[in-house]
Parts: sequence; structure tokens; C-alpha cells
Amino acid sequence: MMTPSDVLHSPERATGSLRVDGGRLWRSLMELAEIGATPKGGVRRLALTDVDRQGRDLVVGWLRETGSRIEIDGAGNILATRPGRDPAARVVLTGSHIDTQPSGGKFDGNYGVLAGLEVLRTLNDANVATDKPVGVAIWTNEEGSRFVPVMGGSGAFAGVFTLDYLLRQRDIDGVSFGEALDRIGYAGSAPVGKRALDAYFEAHIEQGPVLERENKTIGVVTGALGLRWYDCVWTGQDAHAGPTPMEARHDALRGASQLVEAVHALALRRAPDGRATVGSMQVSPNSRNVIPGRVTMTVDMRHPDDDALAAMDSELRAASAAIAHELQLECELRQVDQFEASRFDAACVDAVRTATQDLGYPHREMVSGAGHDAIYLGRVAPTSMIFVPCKDGISHNEIEDAQSEHLEAGANVLLHAVLARAGTSRVDRASA
Amino acid sequence: MMTPSDVLHSPERATGSLRVDGGRLWRSLMELAEIGATPKGGVRRLALTDVDRQGRDLVVGWLRETGSRIEIDGAGNILATRPGRDPAARVVLTGSHIDTQPSGGKFDGNYGVLAGLEVLRTLNDANVATDKPVGVAIWTNEEGSRFVPVMGGSGAFAGVFTLDYLLRQRDIDGVSFGEALDRIGYAGSAPVGKRALDAYFEAHIEQGPVLERENKTIGVVTGALGLRWYDCVWTGQDAHAGPTPMEARHDALRGASQLVEAVHALALRRAPDGRATVGSMQVSPNSRNVIPGRVTMTVDMRHPDDDALAAMDSELRAASAAIAHELQLECELRQVDQFEASRFDAACVDAVRTATQDLGYPHREMVSGAGHDAIYLGRVAPTSMIFVPCKDGISHNEIEDAQSEHLEAGANVLLHAVLARAGTSRVDRASA
Repeated sequence: MMTPSDVLHSPERATGSLRVDGGRLWRSLMELAEIGATPKGGVRRLALTDVDRQGRDLVVGWLRETGSRIEIDGAGNILATRPGRDPAARVVLTGSHIDTQPSGGKFDGNYGVLAGLEVLRTLNDANVATDKPVGVAIWTNEEGSRFVPVMGGSGAFAGVFTLDYLLRQRDIDGVSFGEALDRIGYAGSAPVGKRALDAYFEAHIEQGPVLERENKTIGVVTGALGLRWYDCVWTGQDAHAGPTPMEARHDALRGASQLVEAVHALALRRAPDGRATVGSMQVSPNSRNVIPGRVTMTVDMRHPDDDALAAMDSELRAASAAIAHELQLECELRQVDQFEASRFDAACVDAVRTATQDLGYPHREMVSGAGHDAIYLGRVAPTSMIFVPCKDGISHNEIEDAQSEHLEAGANVLLHAVLARAGTSRVDRASA
Repeated sequence: MMTPSDVLHSPERATGSLRVDGGRLWRSLMELAEIGATPKGGVRRLALTDVDRQGRDLVVGWLRETGSRIEIDGAGNILATRPGRDPAARVVLTGSHIDTQPSGGKFDGNYGVLAGLEVLRTLNDANVATDKPVGVAIWTNEEGSRFVPVMGGSGAFAGVFTLDYLLRQRDIDGVSFGEALDRIGYAGSAPVGKRALDAYFEAHIEQGPVLERENKTIGVVTGALGLRWYDCVWTGQDAHAGPTPMEARHDALRGASQLVEAVHALALRRAPDGRATVGSMQVSPNSRNVIPGRVTMTVDMRHPDDDALAAMDSELRAASAAIAHELQLECELRQVDQFEASRFDAACVDAVRTATQDLGYPHREMVSGAGHDAIYLGRVAPTSMIFVPCKDGISHNEIEDAQSEHLEAGANVLLHAVLARAGTSRVDRASA
């Protein structure tokens, strides 16, 4: 426990013992999860829908109650700022998103936003004044489930694409991002991006199994995997499965199946950093007794090193060409998207690492395999992330789950990384 | 050319020079193909639909014009009989089906029926009286596209399943076979099966590439491949493609892909007789950046020898179990259908072989890879089949094609196999 003399004479020691209220954080997560709740315990809260509006209204209300100033920009991004003592200082920002996958969970995104809210609440409760302002952002349409591109709000904020481009995107029903944003009343007047940040920290569930498997509470995230996405079309010849001898076939599914194995082999050769996945495949005509004449498939390859990813690209192209030649098939392989590997800011990573060590949580350094708003923020601000375990590594699923004590630990790390960056003094409640 | 003395004194030599009218056969095929014609040049004439009725009406009219007696049985099978000189003799039957696949061609089935019609027309034109009656059958719902089971009419005729069972089957809209049969007016009163046949011959396009590739005109069909059908379900765990290391995955698509290769390997070890095909596969959740947690696939295996097929079955089960163990997946493999291998009647095969040799057509012996009405007829009557080439081996497709001269050759072989079996004498037109 702190004494009044700690407060007055040793602000560092004073905030060093600050802790978030894990129960309050959990209750806020559960309350938000009721908006768009699914029967299986998940959440369906697609971007810019009525339930997204309800979720925004709830969280914005909570942020207002902290006394923060609320700004909404032209992409619908929400920025809540708790003022600092230095009016000229750049904001230390945290946040994430509250839109979900169609069959999403309670924690993906929501945790990062509400952990930020919990940081503000904790600072208020303890009457902590920071030198720099501390902010919480809610980025629009991170999931990309309703509108492409994914990470739309943070991408526009970071200038990856223009606001105009973003607003023109249409969902599957033909509704534009801009129309949907107007409809829910979250088309704000604040400029999108164009502001210098002191730092950006994002807390998130890992969405993978590593922390849980290794019994670690915190992942100190040093960067993000580079990514390449491909579409691949195999063309052979439909033929009747009975009368067509094996040697006379042009079976597109054999090409696809061999490439699945080749894709895994080239990632396994680069374990544990390399990743490769065939997530989607369509067989045509997809009839039990017809040799498939056409198969389309996707390939997703990731690696923390861009040169290694380029080598994987070369191997993928060589493998598909060799298989096509061997099986007398046509193979059209087309790259459809690409993200360079990200390396987070060393000082921000160090702030997370130091906070974790000071708090005594079991931890490991890791690289994010998934995309996050922090990837785009990292292009315009010193950035890092904090991961906490999720059950069985499962995310983007209604059964997504996480332990309250892990979420609390991650919020404590966030709190202290933010405080380290923002500069702190305890002030008397009466003078606040 | 024959002289009157040939006719009177040497019926064998007289009919030996008989030939069908290939142009007439082709024109009949093209006229029938107009009923249910598709824009791409194919035919969509599903069993017991209005277009099936129109097709039946057209062909029945042609059969009536040959003077044949028309009977329709309770399964909608149509039997046209040209009387023989011996009232007690069993009928020498030929035929096939005129229902098509949803995107079918002009020749599958239709050729066998109209080749039979052409035999009757040719016998009439030449005033040939046969000792035994000669018949042409149109079997209902061979394709199985609208109603399962496939080869429904011939199966009921052969007693493989009961008429009652057949009539109870429902299409995807819930319409029963019996209701559909009544609606098109082809629910006949003749008993289904329960009659002894002298022989059954069926002419058909090969539906495979072998004859065309080897430049043969006629396939002398000695039997049919045994067949086993399987459904296979691979269960792993959905997971995010980015954050999940390769070694922590339970990727159902890897199991499926490895089984595709294993299935092909076990058939290739038994080339050219063994066949194995994975025709259908569904990946779940089938999303680009999600490791597939569930894949369903089919397996189709065929071999002319039942023992070899049983060995393939064992190898399939062992392979799927080994892959599941290696990849830590669950695999549920279930056999859903089975046909024993068929060996056609030696005397009927010999009749086809002798006719082919006498006519001087390039030929080879072969085993049918596909199912045909002849498979079921072979269970109740001495049976054989005659194959002719089709373009690129393609069937069950709107681009299915065949050459008129090949179709004519097959009909000539059918004519002479039927004549050899039925016994012939040329009679004077005036006395016919």
C-alpha cells in the first residue's frame, strides 16, 4: 500500500504499485458482449450495423464518464483523450476495434478497447495525472468481414489508403461504407489521421496457442509476420471416373492436393517462423463419379523476414509449375495481397517488456501472426502490442475464450507501458 | 448384292450382308436430341419430366411404326417387340435409356435405344424374319440424376429392388417416382421383369478415351468393373492461419490431400485395371486465413476383380488410418455403396466378337468402367455390350460427341449379334 508520502515525494514508486480492476474489466467485456450475442456464446457485431452502433454508444458512454474528450473522424474512428499536464505533448494512444467476425467471440478487439478504458478508469481512480495525454481509439471495420479492406479505419488513419477509397467500398448487399457510416451516425468531422502520436500500444488475445501451451501470461510482441495471399486455379479435364484409366486422366484435384503438401513442406522447412495455409478449396464439378476438371484454392504464406517470404514465394511458384508439368495440368497462380513484415518500435517493445518484468508475469517475446490495427499504426507511430493467452488458441469463433486473470495481467502491462511513456505524477484528488 | 436365290437357299449369307442405315440412325439421334436441347449443344432430359415424356412419345411412335408391339411396365420401362417365327421363343432384347444427366449429351443411352430401333427398321426393310422375337427396351431413370437409385428401371426389372421401393423414391423437390411416372402417363400395366430373355445386348458410347486413343471402332465388352463408394470425413481444429505454428495445427485438409494421393497410388499400382477417384470435396470453414477444421470427401474405387477391389479397400482403410494418426486428425471412412464386378455371358460376348470380326472393324476387348442397364440385365439374362468411341472420352457433358461412322459400325455389330442369337431367314416381302 502507498502512503501519502509516497504520493507526494515519489511519483514513480506511487504509480508502480497501481493495478487495474480485473473484475471491472471482465464485467465491461461481458456487458459489451451482450450486444450482438449469439446463442453459442459468441458475438456477431459486423462493422457499421445497428449492433455496432449500440456497441459504440455503450463504450463511448463509458469513455465519456472517464472525463475524456471524444472525437470521431471521417472514417468513424473514435478517439477518446484524457488530457495530460503538457498541453503540447503528443498523445500516448491505445485501443483496438469492437467490430467482430460473423461468428466471432467476445475478446478479439473488444479486449484492446476495454483494456484501454480500464487504464483510464484506473488513472482516474488513483488521481494520476500524466504528463502526456492518454488516449483510447476504437478503429472502424478491423475484421473486414463486411467491407474490404480489413483494418479499414486504422489503414485510413495511417494513410495506407484514402478516406475516399474507404468510403466507396461496398458490402455484399451493395451498401457503401460511407452510407453505412452515415446511417449509424458515426461519420465524424475530425480529420482522419494527420496527427502525430507519441506511441501506440494495443492489447489483444494471442489468437494462437503458443502462450497457453508454454504457460505464459504475456506475449511481448516484437513485430508481425509478413504475409502473401494467392489464388490458384488448376485446370484439367472432367471425365467419368469409371471408364477413364488412371494414366489418361487430367485430375485437377491431384494438382491441388500435391500443392497442399508442397505448401506445408516449404513452411515446415522454416519452422517455427514460417507459416503456410490452404484455407479454401472449391472442386468442380464436385461429383462423386466425375474426375475433377477444375479446382480453385487459396494459399496464405507468412514469415517475419521478408527475404524468407520472398524465398517461399519462389518455392511456391516452382512447386506449382513442377506439379502442373508432371500431371499435365494447367496451373494459374496469382498473388492477390501482400503485407511486408513489421518490426515494432524498440522503445515501445522495451516499455512492454519492462512493465511485464516489473509486474512479474511469465512471458515470452513473439511475433504477431495475424493482422491488427497496430500493424498500420506502426507505420505512423512508435508501436507495440501485448498478447494474452486465449483458450486453445481459438479465435474468430463463437467459442473464443480467455481467462479473466490473463486479461487483467495484460491490462496491467498496458497500464504501465502507457505510464512509462506518458510520464506520471500522483496528484491530490482535490487538486485534480 | 444378294440375288433371290441367296434369299431362298442361304439365309445366313443373305443376312450376313445386311447393314443398318447410318444416316437414318444419325438423323433419329439428332431429332431426339432436340427434345431438351441445351444452348451448348447438349441435352437436359431428366427422368419422368415433361421432356422425358416428349422423348418417350417420339421414340415409341418410331417403334410403333416398325410394327412392334409396345408394352409399358409398372416402372415405366418400355418394351417394343418385333415378333419372331417361333411363338414360344424368348425375346432377344436390346436397348438402353433416354433420360440424361442435367447437363448431358446426345448419345449416352439414346444411342443404345436408337441403335435398337435401327436394327428393327433394317430387319423390316430387308424383310428378315427372325426365329425368336427381337425387342428394344427403354429403361427408366438410368442416370439417377433425378431419383436414386441409378439404373432404377432395369434394376426393378432384374429384381434388384422392388417396384414398390422404386416408386417411393423422391426427387429433391419431394416428388415421388410413382407420382412423376403417373403424371407423364407412363405408369404401365405390364409386370416388371418376371420374363425370361434369350439375351440382352446394349450398344453404348464408351464414355472413356481408350477406343479413340487406340484408333479402335468397336469395344467388345466382356464385363464391368466392381465398384465401391465411400464417404470420408476428416476432423481437425479450425484455427487462425497466422498465429498458429505449423507444428500446433490439426489441418483437416492435409489429411484429405494426403488421402487423395494415397488413393491414386493404390489404383496406379493396379494399372490399367484399377481405378480410384476423389470426385467431391468440401472444405470447412473454407476461409482463406483459417486452417480447415473439417473436410468431407468421396472415394470411388473400381476393379474388374472383386478380390483386387477388396485389397484396395483394405489399403484405403490402412492409408486413412495412418494419415489420421500421423497428422493427429480424426478420420471417419464409411462405405456407402458397392457393386460386384460383372462378367458378361461368354456366348453373348462371342456373338459380339464374331459380328465385329465378320464386319472387319478394328476392335479390342474391354471392361466397362461405368454402370449401365446391362449390368442389371446381366443378372437375369445372358448379356453383353458393344462400345463405340466418343470424342476425347467425354460423357455426362454437353460437349459429348461421337462420329456417325462409329455409331453406324456399332449398330451393325448390334444387328449381327442380335441376328446370330435370334436365328434368321429372309422372307419374301409378299409373304411377310
